[in-house]
Amino acid sequence: TQMELHTQGRQKFMEFPFVSAPHRELMVDLVSTVEDRLGSQLLPCTLPPDIQHCQNQNGTAQASLHIRSAHDSSTSKVDFILGSWLHFALPTGAALNITSLSAYLNPSTDAPNLVVELIQSSPTSLIFILDLPPRKDPVLYQEYLQTFYENTKLETRRQMLEKLPEVQPYVSSSLYLRCVLSPTAILIRIQTEDSGPERLEEIIKDQLHPVAKEVVGIWVDHCACGEREVEEEEKAYLKKRDQIIKRKTIEIDLGTNFPRLFGPELAGRVLGAIQEVYDR
Amino acid sequence: TQMELHTQGRQKFMEFPFVSAPHRELMVDLVSTVEDRLGSQLLPCTLPPDIQHCQNQNGTAQASLHIRSAHDSSTSKVDFILGSWLHFALPTGAALNITSLSAYLNPSTDAPNLVVELIQSSPTSLIFILDLPPRKDPVLYQEYLQTFYENTKLETRRQMLEKLPEVQPYVSSSLYLRCVLSPTAILIRIQTEDSGPERLEEIIKDQLHPVAKEVVGIWVDHCACGEREVEEEEKAYLKKRDQIIKRKTIEIDLGTNFPRLFGPELAGRVLGAIQEVYDR
Repeated sequence: TQMELHTQGRQKFMEFPFVSAPHRELMVDLVSTVEDRLGSQLLPCTLPPDIQHCQNQNGTAQASLHIRSAHDSSTSKVDFILGSWLHFALPTGAALNITSLSAYLNPSTDAPNLVVELIQSSPTSLIFILDLPPRKDPVLYQEYLQTFYENTKLETRRQMLEKLPEVQPYVSSSLYLRCVLSPTAILIRIQTEDSGPERLEEIIKDQLHPVAKEVVGIWVDHCACGEREVEEEEKAYLKKRDQIIKRKTIEIDLGTNFPRLFGPELAGRVLGAIQEVYDR
Repeated sequence: TQMELHTQGRQKFMEFPFVSAPHRELMVDLVSTVEDRLGSQLLPCTLPPDIQHCQNQNGTAQASLHIRSAHDSSTSKVDFILGSWLHFALPTGAALNITSLSAYLNPSTDAPNLVVELIQSSPTSLIFILDLPPRKDPVLYQEYLQTFYENTKLETRRQMLEKLPEVQPYVSSSLYLRCVLSPTAILIRIQTEDSGPERLEEIIKDQLHPVAKEVVGIWVDHCACGEREVEEEEKAYLKKRDQIIKRKTIEIDLGTNFPRLFGPELAGRVLGAIQEVYDR
C-alpha cells in the first residue's frame, strides 16, 4: 500500500547509515522537528521504492530520497519537504556523504524557504550550509529583510559559528546559488585535521546541532506557520521565482552527479520524479 | 564660474592628501579611467565649495565630494559618478581614511553599477570593496548573471585576491549592503601587522590596483558603454530599485558618520546636496 511504501522509504532514509552518530542525530532531529509540527499537513512519500532508495550496480553509490507534498494548499503553506542522503565511495578509499533537508513554501505566503546541507568529504572535513533563502528580492523589500532576517537575529548564529577556530567561510562555486541564499546564510567549512575526527563530531553535536535546531524552529514558527498577506499579483511572481530556483537547484545539485553515479537511466527517473513534484 | 568651481573642487578631491602614495595612485587612476571614457557625457561638479570640500571646526575631520551627472540622459547611459574621500583623526592618534568611487547608470540600461571603496583604519589594515552591483534580481534573470558576471570572469579576480595570505573575507555589518552586492563582489580585509605598512602598500600597488583597473575597464566597456534593450515597464522597475538602493546607501554610509563628524548643520547640507542628485 501507499502507507507501507512511505513507511519503508522513511525508515531507510532516517537511518543515515554512512555518517557519524552526531551527524545522524542532527539530521533525524531536524526531520522530526519539521514532521512533528507540519506532518499532519503532509502526504506520505509515494515515490517508487527504487527511487526512494537507489544504488549503483557495484554498490559504491547509494542514495535515499524522501519527498512529502502538502495535501491541501488551501490550508497548508507548505509546498513540499525534501530530505535526502547520498553516499559514494571515492577511488581513494574515502567516501563523500551529503545529507540534506529542504522545505519549500507555496505562494499563499512569501516567507522564506529552508535549506540544510552537510557535505562530509573526510572524517575531519565538513561543509555546512544552513539558510532561509528569501523568496523575493530583499533589495526591494526592506520590511522582508527586517521581519525574517533582522528580527529573528539569524546573524548572531552565523557569527557564533564563524568564530570557532576550525571554521572557514565556504564559498559555493555556483554564482547562482550564491544569489539564492540570504544575507545571513551560514556557509562554512570545518576542518579538524589537527585534532582528529572526534573534534569534528564534537562540533557537530555541540555547535551545529543546536544552531540548526534553533533555525529550523524559527523557520517553522515564522515562515511555515506565520501569517503573511500576499496579493494575487504577487502570487504569480512567487510561483515564477520559486519555479526558477527549483529548476536551477536540481540542475546544479543532481544534474551533474546523479547520471555519473547511478547511470543515465536511473538518474533520469530520479530527476523526473523530483521534477514532477516541483511542477505540481 | 561653474567651470572654476568644478576645477577647484576636482583638484582638491584628486589630491587624496591623507593616504599612502599607492592608495592615491589607485584612486587617481580609476577616476581618470572613468573620466577619460565618459567625461564628455558628464556635467561639471557644481556643488557649493564648502560641500565639495568640508571640514569640522577643530580640523580633525575633512572630506571631499565630487559628483558629476550626465548632461543628456537620452545619449548617455550614466546617471552620475560620485567620488569621495573622508579623513578623520581618532582619539587614539590613529586616523580613519575612506576613499570611494561609485557610478550609477540610468534606466536606459539594466547593466550593473560600479562601487570601489578603500577603508584604511591603520597603516597595516585595509578593507577593500570592489563590485558591479546588479540592478535586477539575479535569481530571476539568468542571462543577466551570465552576461555580466560569468562571461566577464569576475570570479577569477575575486579568487586571486582571496588567495593572498594577508587577506581575509570581509563581511559588512549591514544585511542590506550584503543583499545589494553581486555574487562576485570583492569584499576583503587585508592585514599586514607582521610585515608592516610597506607590505600593505605593496599589495595595494601590485594586487589591488591592477584588479580594480581591470574591473573598472569591464564596467566601462560592458556596462556604461554596452548596448542593452530595456522595455518601458522595466525602466520603471529599474528606476524604483535604483532609488531604493541610493536612499539606503546614503543612509548607511553617511547618515550616521557625517552628523557626528561635521555637526548636524553641515552634514544636513551635504546629505541634502547628494539627495538632490539622487532624486534628479
